[in-house]
Amino acid sequence: MVAGAAALRAGLAPPIGCITESPDFRGAGLPGFGHLVFGGHDVTSTPLTKRAEELTRSGVIPPPLAELVRPALDAADSEIRPGATEGGSQGAVARRLIGDLAEFRERRGLARVIVINVSSTEPPAAPDPAHLSLDALEQALEGDIPVLPPSSLYAYAALSAGCPYIDFTPSTGARLPALDELARRRGLPYAGSDAKTGETLVKTALAPMFAVRGLAVRSWSGTNLLGGGDGATLADPAAGESKRISKDRALAEILGHQVEGRTHIDNVPHLGDWKTAWDHITFEGFLGVRMSMQFTWQGCDSALAAPLVLDLARLMARAHERGVAGPVAEFGFFFKDPVGSNEHRLHAQYESLRQWLGQGA
Amino acid sequence: MVAGAAALRAGLAPPIGCITESPDFRGAGLPGFGHLVFGGHDVTSTPLTKRAEELTRSGVIPPPLAELVRPALDAADSEIRPGATEGGSQGAVARRLIGDLAEFRERRGLARVIVINVSSTEPPAAPDPAHLSLDALEQALEGDIPVLPPSSLYAYAALSAGCPYIDFTPSTGARLPALDELARRRGLPYAGSDAKTGETLVKTALAPMFAVRGLAVRSWSGTNLLGGGDGATLADPAAGESKRISKDRALAEILGHQVEGRTHIDNVPHLGDWKTAWDHITFEGFLGVRMSMQFTWQGCDSALAAPLVLDLARLMARAHERGVAGPVAEFGFFFKDPVGSNEHRLHAQYESLRQWLGQGA
Amino acid sequence: MVAGAAALRAGLAPPIGCITESPDFRGAGLPGFGHLVFGGHDVTSTPLTKRAEELTRSGVIPPPLAELVRPALDAADSEIRPGATEGGSQGAVARRLIGDLAEFRERRGLARVIVINVSSTEPPAAPDPAHLSLDALEQALEGDIPVLPPSSLYAYAALSAGCPYIDFTPSTGARLPALDELARRRGLPYAGSDAKTGETLVKTALAPMFAVRGLAVRSWSGTNLLGGGDGATLADPAAGESKRISKDRALAEILGHQVEGRTHIDNVPHLGDWKTAWDHITFEGFLGVRMSMQFTWQGCDSALAAPLVLDLARLMARAHERGVAGPVAEFGFFFKDPVGSNEHRLHAQYESLRQWLGQGA
Amino acid sequence: MVAGAAALRAGLAPPIGCITESPDFRGAGLPGFGHLVFGGHDVTSTPLTKRAEELTRSGVIPPPLAELVRPALDAADSEIRPGATEGGSQGAVARRLIGDLAEFRERRGLARVIVINVSSTEPPAAPDPAHLSLDALEQALEGDIPVLPPSSLYAYAALSAGCPYIDFTPSTGARLPALDELARRRGLPYAGSDAKTGETLVKTALAPMFAVRGLAVRSWSGTNLLGGGDGATLADPAAGESKRISKDRALAEILGHQVEGRTHIDNVPHLGDWKTAWDHITFEGFLGVRMSMQFTWQGCDSALAAPLVLDLARLMARAHERGVAGPVAEFGFFFKDPVGSNEHRLHAQYESLRQWLGQGA
Ligand SMILES: NC(=O)c1ccc[n+]([C@@H]2O[C@H](COP(=O)([O-])OP(=O)(O)OC[C@H]3O[C@@H](n4cnc5c(N)ncnc54)[C@H](O)[C@@H]3O)[C@@H](O)[C@H]2O)c1
Ligand SMILES: NC(=O)c1ccc[n+]([C@@H]2O[C@H](COP(=O)([O-])OP(=O)(O)OC[C@H]3O[C@@H](n4cnc5c(N)ncnc54)[C@H](O)[C@@H]3O)[C@@H](O)[C@H]2O)c1
Ligand SMILES: NC(=O)c1ccc[n+]([C@@H]2O[C@H](COP(=O)([O-])OP(=O)(O)OC[C@H]3O[C@@H](n4cnc5c(N)ncnc54)[C@H](O)[C@@H]3O)[C@@H](O)[C@H]2O)c1
Ligand SMILES: NC(=O)c1ccc[n+]([C@@H]2O[C@H](COP(=O)([O-])OP(=O)(O)OC[C@H]3O[C@@H](n4cnc5c(N)ncnc54)[C@H](O)[C@@H]3O)[C@@H](O)[C@H]2O)c1
Ligand code: NA
Ligand code: NA
Repeated sequence: MVAGAAALRAGLAPPIGCITESPDFRGAGLPGFGHLVFGGHDVTSTPLTKRAEELTRSGVIPPPLAELVRPALDAADSEIRPGATEGGSQGAVARRLIGDLAEFRERRGLARVIVINVSSTEPPAAPDPAHLSLDALEQALEGDIPVLPPSSLYAYAALSAGCPYIDFTPSTGARLPALDELARRRGLPYAGSDAKTGETLVKTALAPMFAVRGLAVRSWSGTNLLGGGDGATLADPAAGESKRISKDRALAEILGHQVEGRTHIDNVPHLGDWKTAWDHITFEGFLGVRMSMQFTWQGCDSALAAPLVLDLARLMARAHERGVAGPVAEFGFFFKDPVGSNEHRLHAQYESLRQWLGQGA
Repeated sequence: MVAGAAALRAGLAPPIGCITESPDFRGAGLPGFGHLVFGGHDVTSTPLTKRAEELTRSGVIPPPLAELVRPALDAADSEIRPGATEGGSQGAVARRLIGDLAEFRERRGLARVIVINVSSTEPPAAPDPAHLSLDALEQALEGDIPVLPPSSLYAYAALSAGCPYIDFTPSTGARLPALDELARRRGLPYAGSDAKTGETLVKTALAPMFAVRGLAVRSWSGTNLLGGGDGATLADPAAGESKRISKDRALAEILGHQVEGRTHIDNVPHLGDWKTAWDHITFEGFLGVRMSMQFTWQGCDSALAAPLVLDLARLMARAHERGVAGPVAEFGFFFKDPVGSNEHRLHAQYESLRQWLGQGA
Repeated sequence: MVAGAAALRAGLAPPIGCITESPDFRGAGLPGFGHLVFGGHDVTSTPLTKRAEELTRSGVIPPPLAELVRPALDAADSEIRPGATEGGSQGAVARRLIGDLAEFRERRGLARVIVINVSSTEPPAAPDPAHLSLDALEQALEGDIPVLPPSSLYAYAALSAGCPYIDFTPSTGARLPALDELARRRGLPYAGSDAKTGETLVKTALAPMFAVRGLAVRSWSGTNLLGGGDGATLADPAAGESKRISKDRALAEILGHQVEGRTHIDNVPHLGDWKTAWDHITFEGFLGVRMSMQFTWQGCDSALAAPLVLDLARLMARAHERGVAGPVAEFGFFFKDPVGSNEHRLHAQYESLRQWLGQGA
Repeated sequence: MVAGAAALRAGLAPPIGCITESPDFRGAGLPGFGHLVFGGHDVTSTPLTKRAEELTRSGVIPPPLAELVRPALDAADSEIRPGATEGGSQGAVARRLIGDLAEFRERRGLARVIVINVSSTEPPAAPDPAHLSLDALEQALEGDIPVLPPSSLYAYAALSAGCPYIDFTPSTGARLPALDELARRRGLPYAGSDAKTGETLVKTALAPMFAVRGLAVRSWSGTNLLGGGDGATLADPAAGESKRISKDRALAEILGHQVEGRTHIDNVPHLGDWKTAWDHITFEGFLGVRMSMQFTWQGCDSALAAPLVLDLARLMARAHERGVAGPVAEFGFFFKDPVGSNEHRLHAQYESLRQWLGQGA
């Protein structure tokens, strides 16, 4: 994504997959690619250049481009700080993260810092009374026992540092009453969860077709095959569960009723980043006649996700500028499980986003 | 469709696939199923009861239902008149058809008669100067050489008899300047062409997904396998051509550019009414990464078409009542090649239809 | 299957799907369909006529045929006895089953009775020392605690009554050392396990293609969607596990190495008997180029299984006549997990069966 | 293929996809990869190094390998001579080609030269009386009007120069009575036609499954999407016709009867070398129940073809050594339309090849 932004900035690649570059969005006063500066927190020390090499080997980044964007990757690498570690109170860890964010903003002279969680999917977090109010949370953070999953600790730190926050993953992140309270109190926008880049994207474009045609969907079954880091993480049933919950929400909302069928997520290392999803749908038409449809999606996850990260950064900058506080429901277009909204129909979400952008003073 | 209407009327079947029965349309003052009376013109003398038997054998109409709706089929059979035959001037044939329509309306005491062309697809019609104005057309109709394809002769007769007209097929039908003139002069609505019930339905729900996500579709290839009367007709390259033209229009309109790929229509008698379509799409994402998607649609054509015929009859009655003259662009939702509109995106078409219905005084 | 046999006998249906009626098998001295007499044990009292009605409703048995074979179903119904129940020693239950089999053979004057287990799939059975020798087993059967799963109790009863036994299911059945000992001691053949009628059938035809072409299969993932009684049973993870073990064996044997990928079995009641399986395969070719293949199988389970049951009955009669004792390895063609053989390649299995039949004196 | 052979020779790549390296073939006395020397005739002057670059760009040849095999490509490039041109008598052209082959063999000190036609597919050739005997052909070759399609002129030249000949394409090549006469008179083997590397490969593995299971295939429809040079060539209906004829032969032979359905070959430039084929099959089971199966094959044509070219060169060397004259029916395993054989079942073909190799003295 850093590689991609560098390529876009230098005019080395067309902005395919970046919706903020489409005619509907141009002229909306979004920050240019050239104005973005990258940094981050990570728990691994594998440099971005190394990961870009893997993406080159697997055919995602063309070799000549990889050469040209290497300086941009080195620059971003030098802005990556150690992630949230265990040991000590979470409050102390949070203060370190907040410091990193503030230091980055000041040293680089940035108008704002947008924090986007693109780390590995966590298992669903156990409920805790301290999640219900900011006061209770801040008290619990000083204890010895961790009260927040890492994604929420990052959200807490981001919001405390005055930074808008985005959950690109299905992890809990900002979706706790205490953190919503924090965002509203600080006048900060947040958005999420779980970018829709494949099977769910198609699902939310297709399910409304059955709805408007009055065709009665009876079952929708899905199998997702993927490798890479995400494949390995989601092979863990607990992490996979977060993803499945997030993926399954859309259908019942769009159709207005539950349907039969399950969603599987399988780790197939040989596929690497090339996720393959098969969905099978049965439906009834006039006089109860049974019909079916199936689709196979073969997408490259990183190439699908990267432009959305850039889009979200630009749009969130605008939301921050416009003083939005709390969840930005209009960003639901990007997410499997949109915070602040029950609208899952892709085209309705797009309209909502377009209108939001148009309104802005 | 007659069987289905009888079943709906008698409450023997739920209105699956009838969009005019969905919450968005109820209360819009559409005529009830119980108020519809069926008749028609056909060139074959095979009775409807016989065709219903075939549909029962092939699993479309459940056997008990077939029994219960037999009287309704007999009633409709008795209202079927010989279709447009060759020999004599087309003007003379038209007068006979007009007479049939008027006689039917009066004898049965109907508020209006809606004519819907559901006959076999014709080859594209050769252009003729007489198609360009009503005067020229009416003069040419009295000559010995046929000037109109049958679908347009039926449209001429319908409009002349004061009946709204709908092209459910890709045939020329009302889509000639002379007939548009006739419709406007008589203050009559018409609509078409070619109901979208399968591959194209999915295409117009899915292509906008690529568009709003900025993913660059490079190719879209399609193969349609079908048997039945329609399969046999479309196996003729000339008739197939009409269908292919009608099917291919949507994509370039939605994406804003041409893409690679062809559409095939194959006659596979063993499939009967169960049309199977496979579509394969290649697209590029960020940094030009190549991805693909494919879907297979397995639908029962008659079960998909019948409720749309009923929907269109009801909606067209409303358009007639409201005094619409000329093409009803807002009915584009139903068609592969919407007359009066370049909007092919299914969800935008749905919104347009919904708003049209809501406006009605 | 009873319905089908009656139809074949009466010449009402061609023997599609019966391999014993193909040119390769005719003249091999197999018993004619007209010589088969049906009976059985079941734990339900739902009559066959009732199940045939369901099969008619779901389109498997054509309605007119259903009428014509009703007497044959009634006859078979009258030969169904209560299955193995719990309570009392398993030895006592076995004696009752043995008595039923002997009485059936004598009263109907049959040359032999072939017992085929087509009951619901059981969970994998817990190992027990009494499974290892016939003496130990016979002693344990007289105890109060059940030592055998029902499928093995039926196998014990069948073999004890002098009847060949076939495991059409993945359940344990005859596959215990003690029962193998019994079969050999009594000079009786047995065969199994788990008829291959869908995904695995295709797998064992297709995997050898990759092998002979030297293409390196890296992953093979499968999702099976099915409803009906079998779907409901296999939704239970324990029963599903038996099936999955049985399904997964073939691939590694054929390819000579393990591959990535899992097999899912989902209960989708709306599909009824129409099982749908999707398999996705990745493989490497020259210079490590990555390619993929996928297939979707849409088969009607009962229509696929019934002729195999008849085939197996006829072939097993021949094996019995020829005095085969122990597992009939040459029947591996029919099974996902062939007892007595590691050969899973469909075409090699077919050759082996054909040669076996040809040898017979 | 030259690149691949160099890689294999240098141990830079494992021989995936080379069946002559499998355990069944090792020790059969085939020439080692290190003993192969490449040359050819072509009508283009684009060097192999340039084409290898394209294959690298499209992900077929890994970049580091491309570097390492460059000297081997340069060496082969220097052995490519101008192909058969028009103008002058075909006899004169043939003499030039024969001279090239003899000069290559002598200068490089080769035991034998195997000629393999891998040039663009030709349209079906018009029948000509001169094709029926060698005498008539040799006379006609001296006339002004071309009597042979280029593929057959190459075959004539190869056989006349004492070289075995292989038709890797569906073009006419050696398949004329006159050329068969020449091969037998000179004691030379030939083989063909049209390597099976994708859809047909799968078809010939899968169709026998339906046959041995007695399932009645009713339709088999196929759509092939491909780009590259082959895609562009086959977009020409005449050339495509040769390919379709060659592809369609297998099915009726294997099943013993004709089935419904067509095969399409579409040029989709965006796919490049990555051919995608979708096949849809309907079949009937017991009691006429209708079922279906479909598969999608996504293979890289050049990566699938290259090892077969190497395999065929090695095997043909052995056939030559063993003095085979006329068509080598046992090489049918490699071809869509095997000369000298009606056996299309992949596994039977494999057995036949294996046995042939084993016999060799
Ligand atoms: N198309 C897509 O790629 C896509 C779409 C939707 C959602 N997502 C989500 O985005 C996330 C990232 O996906 P990916 O494919 O890049 O995964 P990945 O496994 O390749 O990368 C995850 C990164 O997170 C880091 N990480 C893990 N725990 C961390 C922590 N506690 N603090 C800081 N960093 C931590 C890892 O070191 C690694 O660098 C996943 O949750 C995935 O589900 C991805
Ligand atoms: N899902 C669908 O079924 C669907 C969808 C879109 C469009 N259509 C179109 O609807 C039309 C009908 O489809 P079908 O499957 O019912 O076809 P069909 O072949 O079963 O029926 C066509 C009918 O038209 C009659 N006919 C033919 N020429 C006529 C003439 N000149 N005058 C009067 N009657 C004539 C025939 O006798 C027959 O009864 C076709 O054009 C088809 O392309 C159908
Ligand atoms: N294509 C196929 O249908 C196919 C293929 C391979 C294997 N099988 C296996 O065949 C078996 C039957 O499949 P089905 O679809 O007919 O299932 P089903 O659920 O429709 O029928 C199972 C029958 O077994 C009876 N049963 C259950 N427990 C019993 C017991 N202890 N004793 C006697 N009867 C008992 C039930 O009452 C019912 O009549 C399953 O194990 C299935 O996995 C079926
Ligand atoms: N998987 C496969 O690649 C595969 C499988 C089966 C058959 N084939 C057949 O192999 C042939 C080659 O396929 P390709 O993909 O390499 O095609 P391509 O278009 O990339 O290459 C064809 C080559 O033939 C040359 N050529 C054309 N006419 C010639 C002539 N008269 N004399 C000498 N050279 C000539 C062209 O210059 C070009 O170099 C085609 O006929 C194709 O159908 C390929
Ligand atoms: Na239009
Ligand atoms: Na075995």
